[in-house]
Amino acid sequence: MRKQNTAELIIASSENDSNMLYATRFFAPDPFIFLKIPPKKFAVMNDLELDRAKSRIKTCEVVSFSELAAKYGRGGTQPFSSADAAAVLLKKYRVNTVEVPVNFPIQYADALRKKGFRITPRPNPFFKQRAIKKRGEIAEITQTLRATEEALSRAISVIKNSDILGGRLYHEGSLLTADIIKRTIHVALIEQDCLPDHTIVAPGVQGSEPHNEGSGPLFADSPIVIDVFPRSMTSHYYADITRTVVRGKASPKLRKMYAAVQGAQEIAFRMIRAGVDGKKVHAAVTKYFEKQGFKTGIRKGRLQGFTHSTGHGLGLDVHESTRISPRSEILKAGNVVTVEPGLYYPDIGGVRLEDLVVVTQNGCRNLTKLGKCLEL
Amino acid sequence: MRKQNTAELIIASSENDSNMLYATRFFAPDPFIFLKIPPKKFAVMNDLELDRAKSRIKTCEVVSFSELAAKYGRGGTQPFSSADAAAVLLKKYRVNTVEVPVNFPIQYADALRKKGFRITPRPNPFFKQRAIKKRGEIAEITQTLRATEEALSRAISVIKNSDILGGRLYHEGSLLTADIIKRTIHVALIEQDCLPDHTIVAPGVQGSEPHNEGSGPLFADSPIVIDVFPRSMTSHYYADITRTVVRGKASPKLRKMYAAVQGAQEIAFRMIRAGVDGKKVHAAVTKYFEKQGFKTGIRKGRLQGFTHSTGHGLGLDVHESTRISPRSEILKAGNVVTVEPGLYYPDIGGVRLEDLVVVTQNGCRNLTKLGKCLEL
Repeated sequence: MRKQNTAELIIASSENDSNMLYATRFFAPDPFIFLKIPPKKFAVMNDLELDRAKSRIKTCEVVSFSELAAKYGRGGTQPFSSADAAAVLLKKYRVNTVEVPVNFPIQYADALRKKGFRITPRPNPFFKQRAIKKRGEIAEITQTLRATEEALSRAISVIKNSDILGGRLYHEGSLLTADIIKRTIHVALIEQDCLPDHTIVAPGVQGSEPHNEGSGPLFADSPIVIDVFPRSMTSHYYADITRTVVRGKASPKLRKMYAAVQGAQEIAFRMIRAGVDGKKVHAAVTKYFEKQGFKTGIRKGRLQGFTHSTGHGLGLDVHESTRISPRSEILKAGNVVTVEPGLYYPDIGGVRLEDLVVVTQNGCRNLTKLGKCLEL
Repeated sequence: MRKQNTAELIIASSENDSNMLYATRFFAPDPFIFLKIPPKKFAVMNDLELDRAKSRIKTCEVVSFSELAAKYGRGGTQPFSSADAAAVLLKKYRVNTVEVPVNFPIQYADALRKKGFRITPRPNPFFKQRAIKKRGEIAEITQTLRATEEALSRAISVIKNSDILGGRLYHEGSLLTADIIKRTIHVALIEQDCLPDHTIVAPGVQGSEPHNEGSGPLFADSPIVIDVFPRSMTSHYYADITRTVVRGKASPKLRKMYAAVQGAQEIAFRMIRAGVDGKKVHAAVTKYFEKQGFKTGIRKGRLQGFTHSTGHGLGLDVHESTRISPRSEILKAGNVVTVEPGLYYPDIGGVRLEDLVVVTQNGCRNLTKLGKCLEL
């Protein structure tokens, strides 16, 4: 007996769903259908996208949603849905078992199950090969990274050239704020066709919350965490860098934190290679911080120390497989991951350094070229 | 007997899911949990966001995911998931019936159903009140719209001031391309803290595909469709405008198309008011185009004419309820909708004009101030 064929189904917008973009390489704002019934692949498109899809999607047979609706719909008494359209093709090819991403919408899952299909969510990553970047993908990521470095350089240069007056920074006579630095970064990114995400420019104690985007005036002699992670508007690949800088003089405690974070990065760089468990890298970084006297835990009701993972995969999503975290995940050659240890204390602020590396058989290659310097 | 309480549950990132943003007004890149067990509301956050969420989310009790995991997890033998965390709270308040958005991930739906909860997708819009914009929301949309108009004005001014040479446009001595115009728009948007989406600058016949983003050189005497729909990086509200322009002289056929599209917009403006069915507005626009001699249908294998809906709601999503389309949907006071008739013919190109209006009891108020002029 022949093994029952299993289909793969995604119903999503490729602008918001990176698996859809990976499957079709077609960037569209509205949801459409990707269906793989091996060896065939289909993209079911509405009229608005049909012609564009036909000329752009190379890997799939492009099917008209409205033609399916006209042929198989019940004449407008009940709307013909994306689930109905998928069901038509599944029935035609006599496939009953369908694997979907874990974020597959309950609406379509319920509708297809009601029709008798067996719908199973396949654990992340839906496409395992997405975590193994091909040469062209690494080139795309590197291109976004270069644009990001240029943007970050401009921002650092504005901070470096600012005047210090009463503990605050001034740029061209005006108070220098996190918003001005963000705008500097964003203009530089857009000029290079990269779309900024919610860039972090977190001055002083704001930097002690790793996801605080930061606002207000910048201060002298105080850490500023700058984390930039844009997406290319052409390739749609992300990059991600963080630098921490001080305009003026860093306190001894802050210098010690910075040195520890740099040391932690070095440990990770040395350990990362194909076959290593990310969990071990993360454990080594955690242990190193402890040894350097930087404790992690809740103090006065707030979590402090090294409060996040060491790194995450990056590609068509800013956060994707493979992670370097307390969870066991074996690194593979071709993984592109961030290495971003950080220390966060509410009385001092945050220090985070983040580079992007590609995992190789014998180690890792740092894709990031931008230097690291605490004091400006 | 007391009526069984029904909970509302969202598990999503508020950056990617506008219902989550609407429910919590907390902008976060990673998924978290919103759970309403009337009259209580909870936001379950991971450690990274916990402190920031506690200080920012006013409407929910902020709960620590890791505290729930420590108390109710099975000691690491099985990972404690978002579904587990939601289940803890649902059990605590003895709620069995849960309504979720239609895009609720199958992964969590299956996990909760396995635990015996009754999970029902609630049809869109999940929050009906989202379609009725409050005064503050209309102000936010208008602010994004003003930034968009400024960006579009700059683009139109570059085209207007371009030189014509051999049928092509030149700007400061270089060939003027769609990409240069897009970059002009994007820099203007970013300077105003708005994030561009995939802006459309579609020259000539490219404009006959409504979602073709456009590329390559701009031509004289030929239509250029410019559609800009950014999101504010501060309020996260969208705006949406389209203008069609010609540098040089438009052909009589193109001028007739433009006049028809303007006429169609006027018809929609006159019909739109609280209580009117969007379907009727769309039908009137469709009929008007037919009467003007602009046919819609498939010709030589390609759909042409008026190939999309008349308008869509806009707010925290660029496309949201209420639509002005072939589907019956009653307009209500406070709806903010686009009015964007268009005509598309592969031999000529596209013409689309799009304004943003707010529906009132007696009609509609056009929020868009930017003028309309075909020939530059």
